[in-house]
Amino acid sequence: MEKFLFTDFLLSNVPLTEVQLRMLFQKSRVLKVDKGEMLLSAGDTCKHRFFIEKGAVREFYVDEHGKEHLLVFAVEGWFVVNVDSVFFDQPSRYFIQAIEPTKVLLIDEEQVQALSLQSPEFDRFNKQLIYEHIQHLQHRITSLQSDGAEIRYQHFIKAYPELLLRIPQAYIASYLGITPESLSRIRRQLVQQARQK
Amino acid sequence: MEKFLFTDFLLSNVPLTEVQLRMLFQKSRVLKVDKGEMLLSAGDTCKHRFFIEKGAVREFYVDEHGKEHLLVFAVEGWFVVNVDSVFFDQPSRYFIQAIEPTKVLLIDEEQVQALSLQSPEFDRFNKQLIYEHIQHLQHRITSLQSDGAEIRYQHFIKAYPELLLRIPQAYIASYLGITPESLSRIRRQLVQQARQK
Repeated sequence: MEKFLFTDFLLSNVPLTEVQLRMLFQKSRVLKVDKGEMLLSAGDTCKHRFFIEKGAVREFYVDEHGKEHLLVFAVEGWFVVNVDSVFFDQPSRYFIQAIEPTKVLLIDEEQVQALSLQSPEFDRFNKQLIYEHIQHLQHRITSLQSDGAEIRYQHFIKAYPELLLRIPQAYIASYLGITPESLSRIRRQLVQQARQK
Repeated sequence: MEKFLFTDFLLSNVPLTEVQLRMLFQKSRVLKVDKGEMLLSAGDTCKHRFFIEKGAVREFYVDEHGKEHLLVFAVEGWFVVNVDSVFFDQPSRYFIQAIEPTKVLLIDEEQVQALSLQSPEFDRFNKQLIYEHIQHLQHRITSLQSDGAEIRYQHFIKAYPELLLRIPQAYIASYLGITPESLSRIRRQLVQQARQK
């Protein structure tokens, strides 16, 4: 079997047999896309989870004025799951786009469910990932409600230092719910503060 | 067994036997609290899910300036689950408070997990509730990022008409991430618009 980051990620968290691994990979496939290419468009459905083997993607919403709002980033070793399609069989309200040349593994949801029934450890791990996502979303709501733009950016720097140099500023601003101009101003202030120390 | 809304809610969604129901109720208990009483305070942990039998509660965060930010409401027939404690065994970052005289059922998480292992239907239903919560949180983030305050309030009216008369305006404003003054202004405008129609 081809060597995947996903396999390492799984096996370092859940003891799975070779047979179980093969089961999960049975309907999975690898997709390589260029920077800018869409993995999923709003209105489409997909019944697989994306695991990023290499590269970076963003999931975003386009409002009625055509403005984009960033829901999540993902880089290698992370999942992106379009909740609308995968869990509700509904057309996605979001786009998923590669923001670097990207290699993703498409993990078929049926196989995830089948393996969950067979392996309680896998099911537990799977749930844990979902709980982490809920906690992350809750913290983001609280942060959007309560933190000023500068604090939000500082939290982002601390949480995702590896993203800072890879992700365009405009996307980080969108993720934080601020304008690119505000983000530039905050960055200049932080640089000045750092110099004065 | 005492008659609970929770039992009706469950059985209308999952076929459970009397034995399975008893298993779920084994460590559960009923709690009646007055308006204003805390069901959980930040820093505490609890290993049960709250199901609201009667009344209304809010889960909220208090920022470093003492300002409150509302994460979720729940009224009869809804769950409130403090993710930090129940799923991560961490002290809660949030408070849960009754905003009416409230009767809640405390569903022990261990029993939920035990029944999940025994009943695939219950497990599936449980997951479905969690997926719905994720979808709800994602929509809220997108709405906080993209919608103006008036649109956010109109969505709230449509989604939760039953809450409008029960929940204090200040809490609704906090949930929507706007000031109580802005909410009053929006309400006046909507009333005027309705009169002109």
